[in-house]
Amino acid sequence: MNKGEATRREIIEKAAPIFNQKGFEGASLSDLMQATGLEKGGIYRHFESKEQLAGEAFDYAWKTAMDRRMAGIEEIAKSVDQLKQFVRNFRERREGLVPGGCPLLNTAIESDDGNALLRRRAKRALGGLLNRLETIATEGLKRNEIKRGIDTKELATLIVSTLEGSLMVSRLQKTDEPRAMACRHLEEYLEEKVRN
Amino acid sequence: MNKGEATRREIIEKAAPIFNQKGFEGASLSDLMQATGLEKGGIYRHFESKEQLAGEAFDYAWKTAMDRRMAGIEEIAKSVDQLKQFVRNFRERREGLVPGGCPLLNTAIESDDGNALLRRRAKRALGGLLNRLETIATEGLKRNEIKRGIDTKELATLIVSTLEGSLMVSRLQKTDEPRAMACRHLEEYLEEKVRN
Repeated sequence: MNKGEATRREIIEKAAPIFNQKGFEGASLSDLMQATGLEKGGIYRHFESKEQLAGEAFDYAWKTAMDRRMAGIEEIAKSVDQLKQFVRNFRERREGLVPGGCPLLNTAIESDDGNALLRRRAKRALGGLLNRLETIATEGLKRNEIKRGIDTKELATLIVSTLEGSLMVSRLQKTDEPRAMACRHLEEYLEEKVRN
Repeated sequence: MNKGEATRREIIEKAAPIFNQKGFEGASLSDLMQATGLEKGGIYRHFESKEQLAGEAFDYAWKTAMDRRMAGIEEIAKSVDQLKQFVRNFRERREGLVPGGCPLLNTAIESDDGNALLRRRAKRALGGLLNRLETIATEGLKRNEIKRGIDTKELATLIVSTLEGSLMVSRLQKTDEPRAMACRHLEEYLEEKVRN
């Protein structure tokens, strides 16, 4: 990585918490200058626009979140236990996340009627996550670990919807309990209705 | 209602879709002027600040949403059927809603690290909704319509989390299917695990 690439990377990492907490519209130039310690010209030498920087900051924040959410899953044998690990990670593995809550939830809500570039990135992130979970469930069906008749796409969508919705409630109430409730519900559902 | 009150009301109603679609930060003065057909002075004669207008627009949008979500519930006898009606309303009764998705979800996500006034309004709205659902469930417990051991606060939180999360997925993917999946899941859960 040369010096320009390193600076660009550093700007992305320092801008990510600003965008994730304040949103694309709410993040001001002075916020970004303060976070990066650079002047306007120093930032925009590396990015075409605020939109481009926000897009890269989203991808960075989302990769960080996905690394946590998927941690330890590959070492687990059974598909239902992999899905349970995903749920557990959502509740427990939050060290090192970009502050401000889930980047997907934040960016999806802000951009669903708004910025097209950010909306595309959020949609791609969601699609990637649903695919990962669906693939786990499909493997489980093939190996007879998951009950016949389970719709793997529906299962993946339900897990993501329940967790992301509970995060909204937890963050608004400033308590972990709603997230923990959602996780317990999904774990019970996976044991009782999904595991073969 | 005198003329000033009528104008104030009209501004709130016309500003609500702007704030609900673009967010507090994303809604510009020119957006608000265009939506209301008024100049800046004409708008801010009736409101102290953009924040105050956004707060009133949120309350209006939320009242509209709650009217739809609670429609028909009082005429239903059994508590589990009341909760199922709430879920069904979330999927089906969307005519006349303020455009832009759920005002609670939008405002919660934007304000959780941001505007304190909007955060308070969103938190109050969420609290009111959870209370309504919890009251229904508590009545059901008393009347033996709901299984002993069901935690009514947990049930209310789970219903709201699952629905709101599925709305994020539905709006990002521009398809009703994730919301329908979440509703089917909750209906099944209410029948199998909650109803006595």
